Amino acid sequence: MALKLYGLPMSTCTTRVLACLHEKGVDFELVPVDLFSGEHKQPPFLSKNPFGQIPVLEDGDLTLFESRAITAYVAEKFKETGTDLIKHNNPKEAALVKVWVEVESQNFNSAISPIVFEHIVGPIMGKTADQAVIDANLEKLGKVLDVYESKLSITKYLAGDFYSLADLHHFPYTHYFMTTPWASLVNDRPHVKAWWEDISSRPAFKKIVGAMTFGEGK
Amino acid sequence: MALKLYGLPMSTCTTRVLACLHEKGVDFELVPVDLFSGEHKQPPFLSKNPFGQIPVLEDGDLTLFESRAITAYVAEKFKETGTDLIKHNNPKEAALVKVWVEVESQNFNSAISPIVFEHIVGPIMGKTADQAVIDANLEKLGKVLDVYESKLSITKYLAGDFYSLADLHHFPYTHYFMTTPWASLVNDRPHVKAWWEDISSRPAFKKIVGAMTFGEGK
Repeated sequence: MALKLYGLPMSTCTTRVLACLHEKGVDFELVPVDLFSGEHKQPPFLSKNPFGQIPVLEDGDLTLFESRAITAYVAEKFKETGTDLIKHNNPKEAALVKVWVEVESQNFNSAISPIVFEHIVGPIMGKTADQAVIDANLEKLGKVLDVYESKLSITKYLAGDFYSLADLHHFPYTHYFMTTPWASLVNDRPHVKAWWEDISSRPAFKKIVGAMTFGEGK
Repeated sequence: MALKLYGLPMSTCTTRVLACLHEKGVDFELVPVDLFSGEHKQPPFLSKNPFGQIPVLEDGDLTLFESRAITAYVAEKFKETGTDLIKHNNPKEAALVKVWVEVESQNFNSAISPIVFEHIVGPIMGKTADQAVIDANLEKLGKVLDVYESKLSITKYLAGDFYSLADLHHFPYTHYFMTTPWASLVNDRPHVKAWWEDISSRPAFKKIVGAMTFGEGK
């Protein structure tokens, strides 16, 4: 039975899982969730994820939520097929993947997501962007990217000289961020720029980027 | 060779790792880092963690940072000894541990840490607590704990009827939060209260709680 992914192909967290599923070459069914009618806050969906957020993965009788937990599960379950995203045969490299997965989660995401929210998501919902929030987080993001620039001058990818979940998890927010006026934060750092051009040109990403239209035409 | 943990026994993220090491019964050396003199922002420490944060774990020639990456590494490396914190023999339970580890990271931590920062950490640094930030995050935390209350009425611990990293990761911030005027957010929810009393009475926690003095005497 194919995996069932509840989500939307323009949502950042759904995209994180979609990229992983494509990297692993896993068969799955995407089930749309109508956020605009509030389907994710109704009991049927809340029984899958009590926080009322997408995505949710169903694998038989197992129901999972939180995009980074889902990618870790998929990468582990299908470790023998597709791209090895967790370096399961090398405990040291696997540990470094964990470190940089956490860096994305704790340092990168917390800076970039408020920028994307204020500039793209908020205005769609009728809110005026709060430039002070954007500015504070641009400063935070710049400092994180300074560390990335230094690391990526030593290794080709974040956890080492191999592509992993740590890189993959950066896809969705960086994609949307690159449509903002502040893309120079990436482009002005040569190793970060080369890394982004590399990972954003992967076939798995190209399969999903066409549907990442959040904010277009706003 | 024993593991070497760079950190401070009063720091939340160091405590997360200490609790894990004690649960696993692993031999380690704690190396203090002098945050007050800025040791963590100097080159020797930055070569271990370029973000200049504690804790850092050294295991031979492997250097790891980010507390949740370190606990995952320790729980995996020593999976055959001490408490099984990742349910490594049961893929479904292991997946649910991953889900609730992420819930702590994304939902719980993001609400509780600003409260602890504003009420305890900021004043030590001479800052006045921002009550608006506290209030906004108390509301967020209450909603997260509503979900916990519901889940903990069905299973004894967050990921199931077994103690795991998902529970352990909640130790440090909840401990400090329970010293604030808003401990009723936990105590008014009977299943959350019982869960907290259970996990905070574990021997591994009792070994470290005496040194968690941040904010005392402020």
